[in-house]
Amino acid sequence: MKTNVAILGATGYTGVELLRILLNHPSVKITGLSSERFSGIRISDVFPSLSGCDINTKTIDDPSVYKNADVVFSCLPNEKSAEIVPELIKLGKRVIDLSAAFRFSDSKIYKQWYHKHPAPELLKQAVYGLPELFRKDIKKATLVANPGCYPVSVLLPVIPLVKEGIISPDKTIIIDSKSGVTGAGRNPSQELHFSEVNEGFRPYKPMAHRHQPEMESIIKKESGKNVKVAFVPHLLPINRGILSSIYFEVNGEHDFKKAQSVLERFYKNEKFVKILDSNTLPNPAYLKGSNYCYISMSYNQNLNHIVVFSAIDNLGKGASGNAVQNMNIMMGFDEAEGIIHLPLFP
Amino acid sequence: MKTNVAILGATGYTGVELLRILLNHPSVKITGLSSERFSGIRISDVFPSLSGCDINTKTIDDPSVYKNADVVFSCLPNEKSAEIVPELIKLGKRVIDLSAAFRFSDSKIYKQWYHKHPAPELLKQAVYGLPELFRKDIKKATLVANPGCYPVSVLLPVIPLVKEGIISPDKTIIIDSKSGVTGAGRNPSQELHFSEVNEGFRPYKPMAHRHQPEMESIIKKESGKNVKVAFVPHLLPINRGILSSIYFEVNGEHDFKKAQSVLERFYKNEKFVKILDSNTLPNPAYLKGSNYCYISMSYNQNLNHIVVFSAIDNLGKGASGNAVQNMNIMMGFDEAEGIIHLPLFP
Amino acid sequence: MKTNVAILGATGYTGVELLRILLNHPSVKITGLSSERFSGIRISDVFPSLSGCDINTKTIDDPSVYKNADVVFSCLPNEKSAEIVPELIKLGKRVIDLSAAFRFSDSKIYKQWYHKHPAPELLKQAVYGLPELFRKDIKKATLVANPGCYPVSVLLPVIPLVKEGIISPDKTIIIDSKSGVTGAGRNPSQELHFSEVNEGFRPYKPMAHRHQPEMESIIKKESGKNVKVAFVPHLLPINRGILSSIYFEVNGEHDFKKAQSVLERFYKNEKFVKILDSNTLPNPAYLKGSNYCYISMSYNQNLNHIVVFSAIDNLGKGASGNAVQNMNIMMGFDEAEGIIHLPLFP
Amino acid sequence: MKTNVAILGATGYTGVELLRILLNHPSVKITGLSSERFSGIRISDVFPSLSGCDINTKTIDDPSVYKNADVVFSCLPNEKSAEIVPELIKLGKRVIDLSAAFRFSDSKIYKQWYHKHPAPELLKQAVYGLPELFRKDIKKATLVANPGCYPVSVLLPVIPLVKEGIISPDKTIIIDSKSGVTGAGRNPSQELHFSEVNEGFRPYKPMAHRHQPEMESIIKKESGKNVKVAFVPHLLPINRGILSSIYFEVNGEHDFKKAQSVLERFYKNEKFVKILDSNTLPNPAYLKGSNYCYISMSYNQNLNHIVVFSAIDNLGKGASGNAVQNMNIMMGFDEAEGIIHLPLFP
Repeated sequence: MKTNVAILGATGYTGVELLRILLNHPSVKITGLSSERFSGIRISDVFPSLSGCDINTKTIDDPSVYKNADVVFSCLPNEKSAEIVPELIKLGKRVIDLSAAFRFSDSKIYKQWYHKHPAPELLKQAVYGLPELFRKDIKKATLVANPGCYPVSVLLPVIPLVKEGIISPDKTIIIDSKSGVTGAGRNPSQELHFSEVNEGFRPYKPMAHRHQPEMESIIKKESGKNVKVAFVPHLLPINRGILSSIYFEVNGEHDFKKAQSVLERFYKNEKFVKILDSNTLPNPAYLKGSNYCYISMSYNQNLNHIVVFSAIDNLGKGASGNAVQNMNIMMGFDEAEGIIHLPLFP
Repeated sequence: MKTNVAILGATGYTGVELLRILLNHPSVKITGLSSERFSGIRISDVFPSLSGCDINTKTIDDPSVYKNADVVFSCLPNEKSAEIVPELIKLGKRVIDLSAAFRFSDSKIYKQWYHKHPAPELLKQAVYGLPELFRKDIKKATLVANPGCYPVSVLLPVIPLVKEGIISPDKTIIIDSKSGVTGAGRNPSQELHFSEVNEGFRPYKPMAHRHQPEMESIIKKESGKNVKVAFVPHLLPINRGILSSIYFEVNGEHDFKKAQSVLERFYKNEKFVKILDSNTLPNPAYLKGSNYCYISMSYNQNLNHIVVFSAIDNLGKGASGNAVQNMNIMMGFDEAEGIIHLPLFP
Repeated sequence: MKTNVAILGATGYTGVELLRILLNHPSVKITGLSSERFSGIRISDVFPSLSGCDINTKTIDDPSVYKNADVVFSCLPNEKSAEIVPELIKLGKRVIDLSAAFRFSDSKIYKQWYHKHPAPELLKQAVYGLPELFRKDIKKATLVANPGCYPVSVLLPVIPLVKEGIISPDKTIIIDSKSGVTGAGRNPSQELHFSEVNEGFRPYKPMAHRHQPEMESIIKKESGKNVKVAFVPHLLPINRGILSSIYFEVNGEHDFKKAQSVLERFYKNEKFVKILDSNTLPNPAYLKGSNYCYISMSYNQNLNHIVVFSAIDNLGKGASGNAVQNMNIMMGFDEAEGIIHLPLFP
Repeated sequence: MKTNVAILGATGYTGVELLRILLNHPSVKITGLSSERFSGIRISDVFPSLSGCDINTKTIDDPSVYKNADVVFSCLPNEKSAEIVPELIKLGKRVIDLSAAFRFSDSKIYKQWYHKHPAPELLKQAVYGLPELFRKDIKKATLVANPGCYPVSVLLPVIPLVKEGIISPDKTIIIDSKSGVTGAGRNPSQELHFSEVNEGFRPYKPMAHRHQPEMESIIKKESGKNVKVAFVPHLLPINRGILSSIYFEVNGEHDFKKAQSVLERFYKNEKFVKILDSNTLPNPAYLKGSNYCYISMSYNQNLNHIVVFSAIDNLGKGASGNAVQNMNIMMGFDEAEGIIHLPLFP
């Protein structure tokens, strides 16, 4: 018997990517889709790429959207998700929240960067949904907070290196990240208008982006160490993909060799994280539509600096692919079910 | 038991797309890959998107490439394919040829547009591999000539309209086609260098492209009518996708209504061809990585002209996706096996 | 002494292109800029590319915007322009209107495609601002209606061919045009959001676009002939550029040769229209930021069809460049002043 | 009387950009163009954007290319330039070399990163052509080594900050740079093929790029300080533009304020370097075709880190625009002559 699934906020980019994956997922049936901007419209009319999917979207006020669902994915804005998820939990649903609403254990940090949390008691219960790090907790979770796209690209290489003492909390890590435009959502705005983005490239919110405290708090939670992160995101004129270039100082070449082997060992049995040798540099062009993360690193001995490159599809491992991986773990499916397909290149 | 498959010319774009599909195809095992430019190299080093595929490529002179294969896909250049396919047939292989070498029944036309055919006797035996039109023949075929990418986009809407008399052989059909750059292959050249293509758009070989006689001869074969086609391809600064805008004169609005219903009826039971209503205009952005063809049409009553828009992914329904569909038919698999996944959008 | 110039609607794409040109124009001084969306803001804060230009924009209700201007460029929406231009004319300004408000002599056709015209009496007085065809009238004009971008690309090659009888009014001309995204304006919308346009291509308003009656009425005015035009515009995922592919039937190869020589003769002394030989195919990539139009043509003798390719920068010869050319003519400046710079490639 | 100018290696991207600028430069006449790949061809046939420029290219072995030139621009590869420039100097030419051949005073460093220098004695005589820093020397120079594109974007903000002690030599500066594809030249290659670059983003030569020693040696020369630079360039899927994100640690917020005022003061009278306030983040989209550099900086007080963003057009201020600025200074022209036009946006 198939698991019934609802998607709230289905007409944004994480929504359409979830649908693309789940409509071909052998163990899942879509039973409800919500959308405020496109309510009442057949989803395949909103996204002609979903041809054959005849489900009509409803507004979120209509409980029939999620009534029959065993699992609910929320792709709603943070505030909306923070409000509705507690209700869903009360109804006994399993929830995978793609917003930031339940990513922080500490409601004070959440308030500082987002807004006053309406359900702080749920923060302790929520599990941070990065399977390679928190698989055991995800298995038992009712509420999974799917990570931010930039944090996925950063935490996968950084946490093992912090835990093994290669990255020292004394030194700030410099994280220069670049993301495709789907990471900024689907709502039209002047600055995401085609001709404003095309043939350009720009930083935004330098060292003041909300994913910085998310990274720092998860590093702390996992390693016990207060690592500081100088994080600057940039906007790439492409649809999909994140490349993070992560710089930190080490004590010598032995640290570089150790770093390489730490990551190789840590991810040896992981299907979706590939540690490349240092001659192969990651490029999100090779990851489109997939749930993979590619990582490699380089070292300069005169400078004693390592740079780690980490690439994902921001809608894949950075959002919807990873969310389905979480669902697979929660429901006891094969972890790779529905997301094992290869990336589209070119 | 799985069917053994070899791909000749695996390191071009139709090759990598075949591999992307076939590596996830449940009934197939890859047993050989050839490449001249990258021979001896592991395929996942040529294409990091194929991570996990450890097969080494060999030159085509090494018969072990295809020795164990039940089915051979040839992505070789026309001349090479024309030479080697007869040998493969002799060895008892089933062959799906993605080159133009076996698309023409008439060796004189082939010679005029390509070169003297080294195995003209095979031309009669080869089946033109457009499943929606020639499914029965494909089922029994040993050698299938996979169609050109432009012809796929054109023949699917045009042939039923010619057969039903809506398109008249008296009037030239104007076909203004636009293709993404992967359609031009993977070999580096000045005119396909990134900065020469990006932010531009240009016609090429106007009314002198080899796909014109291919279209005309297949229309003739299927309908018995000599329809003339003024065909101008253009190069789009995108990776994947073809949109063909097909113009012809009709006798009045009843012809438009009839045309719409002819196509709807013709493709009613086809999984991969979708006839849209005339308010929905096709865009290859909605078809990336898929085997679908989207068709819609518009009419202007003052002009008595219909324009049909037809969109495909040139590497999907225009090449490798369609080739796998042919294999599925030839081998008695479910026709949609391995190619039923939804397009990637955005 | 410099000519004072105001730009109404300065914060759209035709506005910023006018400013780019005029701020370096030796005979002009900008004395006023209007904007509704960005009023009160320094123009270089709206467009950092205009660094050093400190003029603040005002709303159009503030007459100081145009009070001191000798020449006013209107980049307003059609309705707004139709309303305000009559006032400007009364104030004795010379007006170059980049909207469609004064492109039609016949107010009935205008009403059918746009809205009821508030100042039909001005329609007779307005001159259609295509200098290569109407230079004499422009010289004496008070009100110049700058042509639509698509019509510029089409009328330049088509009108001489109609006048010389090579294009016959008996046969419909097929015009398949493709435009960059700046042609659709700067207002954010779902369908012009970066990720919806990027890596895609689509037709819009097939055989129902407002530029069709504009082309037909100007052809009629200039040649006296009722030529019918089947016009389908498409959206290219690039910033700037139009390529129109124009198909028509002729009587034989002599018509092709005659067509080539007609155009060469017609544009022999024109700085901005280049007739290329038939081996050189136009590409708007070679025209970015310029006021040039490149034209070439091909012929197929089996089909007796000519295809003419015509390329412009939609913001250059298709809008702001051409508007400045009109101003130069009206004010007695050298016709190429400020617009003779070469295109940016790549 | 006009200055005669020759361009060696005219058919690459810095060549075509030089031509675009110089053909409209009021004080210059082009008297010779060399090209190996396209010798004997009219330059406007190589670049249709240069319509009207009828000069035929010759091979460099033909001395008539540069015989009549007062000034020679070399856009040749490093090795070729190192060989021919000494001859040109002997002939009494003024030379502006856009290659790396004369950018290093120390022939040992040059040999380590490039090859053995054939004319080390000229290294002392050559002036590093960054006008804002070395204007006085350029004025008197016979041989100017035009800087590398990345160094231009980095040295303009970094050198004043090092000189004023805000950047300390004790700490490594992290420089994460991103460049458009024209920076990689015009020669076709697999990795610069359209579909390999489009929709992707990748680092290359991490902490091992030749521009690193160039930056370090110029910083040393100007400030006397040994500043270490961890430099990682990345390839952006756009034609033109560099954005460098430059990270360094400071002692507190006063350093940030001081840094801002140091740069504002340093560049107060410079036409081509704009120091933006920290709310305005540079984007090379606003600089296409221009000779400007935009710089702004941000600060995080928890981290005590500054990030400086610096944007240029790699073919403008990063190469050909800057080279013309050098020529203007050398020849006593107005420094902004021919390069004062505004950037193209969008």
